[in-house]
Amino acid sequence: MTTLDLAYAQDLDRRDPLAGFRDEFLIDDPNTIYLDGNSLGRLPKRTVARLYNAVEVEWGKRLVRGWNEGWMDAPARIGGKIARLIGAQADEVIVADSTSVNFYKLVQAALDARPGRGQIVTETVNFPTDSYILQGIVRARGANYRLTTVDSTGGIVIPTQAIVEAIHPDECALVTLSHTAFKSGALYDMQAITDAAHRAGALVLWDLSHSVGAVPVELDQSKADLAVGCTYKYLNGGPGAPAFLYVRRDLQEPLSNPIQGWFGQRDQFAMGLEYAPAAGMTRFLVGTPPILSLLAIEGGIDVLLEAGIARLRAKSIAQTELLIALWEAWLKPFGVTLNSPREAKERGSHVSLGHPDALRIDRALIEELRVIPDFRYPDNIRFGIAPLYTSFVDIYHAMERMRQILADKLYTKYPTDRPTVT
Amino acid sequence: MTTLDLAYAQDLDRRDPLAGFRDEFLIDDPNTIYLDGNSLGRLPKRTVARLYNAVEVEWGKRLVRGWNEGWMDAPARIGGKIARLIGAQADEVIVADSTSVNFYKLVQAALDARPGRGQIVTETVNFPTDSYILQGIVRARGANYRLTTVDSTGGIVIPTQAIVEAIHPDECALVTLSHTAFKSGALYDMQAITDAAHRAGALVLWDLSHSVGAVPVELDQSKADLAVGCTYKYLNGGPGAPAFLYVRRDLQEPLSNPIQGWFGQRDQFAMGLEYAPAAGMTRFLVGTPPILSLLAIEGGIDVLLEAGIARLRAKSIAQTELLIALWEAWLKPFGVTLNSPREAKERGSHVSLGHPDALRIDRALIEELRVIPDFRYPDNIRFGIAPLYTSFVDIYHAMERMRQILADKLYTKYPTDRPTVT
Repeated sequence: MTTLDLAYAQDLDRRDPLAGFRDEFLIDDPNTIYLDGNSLGRLPKRTVARLYNAVEVEWGKRLVRGWNEGWMDAPARIGGKIARLIGAQADEVIVADSTSVNFYKLVQAALDARPGRGQIVTETVNFPTDSYILQGIVRARGANYRLTTVDSTGGIVIPTQAIVEAIHPDECALVTLSHTAFKSGALYDMQAITDAAHRAGALVLWDLSHSVGAVPVELDQSKADLAVGCTYKYLNGGPGAPAFLYVRRDLQEPLSNPIQGWFGQRDQFAMGLEYAPAAGMTRFLVGTPPILSLLAIEGGIDVLLEAGIARLRAKSIAQTELLIALWEAWLKPFGVTLNSPREAKERGSHVSLGHPDALRIDRALIEELRVIPDFRYPDNIRFGIAPLYTSFVDIYHAMERMRQILADKLYTKYPTDRPTVT
Repeated sequence: MTTLDLAYAQDLDRRDPLAGFRDEFLIDDPNTIYLDGNSLGRLPKRTVARLYNAVEVEWGKRLVRGWNEGWMDAPARIGGKIARLIGAQADEVIVADSTSVNFYKLVQAALDARPGRGQIVTETVNFPTDSYILQGIVRARGANYRLTTVDSTGGIVIPTQAIVEAIHPDECALVTLSHTAFKSGALYDMQAITDAAHRAGALVLWDLSHSVGAVPVELDQSKADLAVGCTYKYLNGGPGAPAFLYVRRDLQEPLSNPIQGWFGQRDQFAMGLEYAPAAGMTRFLVGTPPILSLLAIEGGIDVLLEAGIARLRAKSIAQTELLIALWEAWLKPFGVTLNSPREAKERGSHVSLGHPDALRIDRALIEELRVIPDFRYPDNIRFGIAPLYTSFVDIYHAMERMRQILADKLYTKYPTDRPTVT
């Protein structure tokens, strides 16, 4: 039987084929264990050089000429690279706006493409911004539209059957879910739910924010219709970096962008008086993209592509398994619960642990022992595993420090008011 | 009578109280005359340092903690500074999304606030992205909505009376115009048009993209309802930097953001299931802001505030007057037309010159003689005056070089196909 000691974690690091990728990132204090890459990924070193060139050379010296020297092409070029991480073709993905704005655009486009159908199916554990946007759209569209929200309390066990049964065969226009649940890390069966939506004649829209760059996604293979996702988590694109959207190729022409901005206009600089949508994914652009934040995305994606999603997933599973084994040995006796699926194949790349004092334990981890996880109201601590720069020893020490905080009750001095960290 | 020679321009520079602000910007080649600050402003030196701190310290080292150390507050903090440039209160302006997305949000909010009224009034010379978005909204809302587009061919003379007459007293919901016209630089009478909209019970939405930072704007004083604008022109915020929006204080609570994202949610990190709009301007946020591009805005605005809008406007007028005087003396004989108002008080901070070969003349200015203006289809060359870093000698040389291009027909070797520069 395996002994869960430091030597074991060190051995896993020695045998890790991806260990060298840690050097691709700025890690100024190796003693701080960063397990919040599922909220904001670390800074890739190559992004620093790329940004300095963008600022000092492209903006500073080339000025407006920069638009013809790489800026105009950036949304499609970077989208094409993201496509390789999510099982899509290069011309099915583009970078634009925020995840929330992209989600809004694709929900509106999907509803317009299914006239006479008024049902949208989602879940209580969907990411809040998606739920809020759906509520606004349903209210604005009036009495013929309704939101069916499947109650998935806790969200550790995915109620696939309940979701499928909620889809009305004649009335459903759209099924939309987060592919990896933001709280529990539970992973959805993209194929089963997509198939069920299609049997009813509905479209499906996946939010990939907590999957992309950490979990294999097969959009084309599953025949998924639409997807959105963010680039600042496992893609390491920087705080609030622009998001992406995917529209399956055969749906690009039939769908319309509800926000008809000039970057989605065919022959944009003719400045014609009438809107005519550009071909392909370009029509899903709206306004001028924030170039500095946009260019900051590319380096992190290049690193991911070099590592390869299959190897990342294998390491992620080994790391979440280690974390859960240490939880079981050390933390479960203190009343800490596992709020993520126990089976690796049902899990994304973060693990949630629950405790009535989770907020104060989270503060103590950060302030006392330099472990940075992520707190989610009311009682969840999320430990995000970003396999590119997280070591097995990191995970070992993080759980060891959490055990110390519980054993020595180091959290009791912290207040219970909630911080505003995302 | 004044002699329009180099000594005259040099003397104007010597007497310019704002001349020292040129040192605030990266100017790598003084021989390249950049007159496209109305498309993309120059790089403020202080922005370089600010960005490097944002990348290497805030993202690189503070990581997710950055949200509590300045990032969350940035949209309102920077919005509050922009407010001082447009005659608004600090809590009436916030930075978010692109100009196009903000325009969409405020048009939808305005129409929702005027139920039973279906007319929107705009103009043919409005900036295309605004017109395109209006067309999409009117189509989506169906038969009860219509767009009245006043024909302002050329746009050099503002047809204020025609706009006022187009406002239906019982049916108009919204009047929306660009405050400074993007082609001609003509300046609208904000007070007269706002008053006319209000007399009809309509709201007014101003696009300030070509005004902010160059032209005095008095939103509160004119009782304007809504405004949007970009930050990458005279504010020098960087390529595609996030835009701003203004909602007069008493309208903030009655209006709803149609894109109900989590950054507009009251008590955002409670992650509640139901959307409840945040107080004040925060409700007009949507998704996670692109922090690097957002933080890049602040330095340029600080420089503008130090210079002061009154002094900037005085210099801008003196500079556009010099440019027009040189046009009259040197370029008019070659058939070049003035496509901007002749009267300074009717003009923003750029001057358009027209010629049947404008596209090729523009290319020759850039490629042969290192003058960078901005071409606008089909026959306009825009010369943008950014008084913070443009000298009178710059303007003198730019017009002298254009005369040379016309006299020596240096443009004839260039092709007539359109470039894709914004």
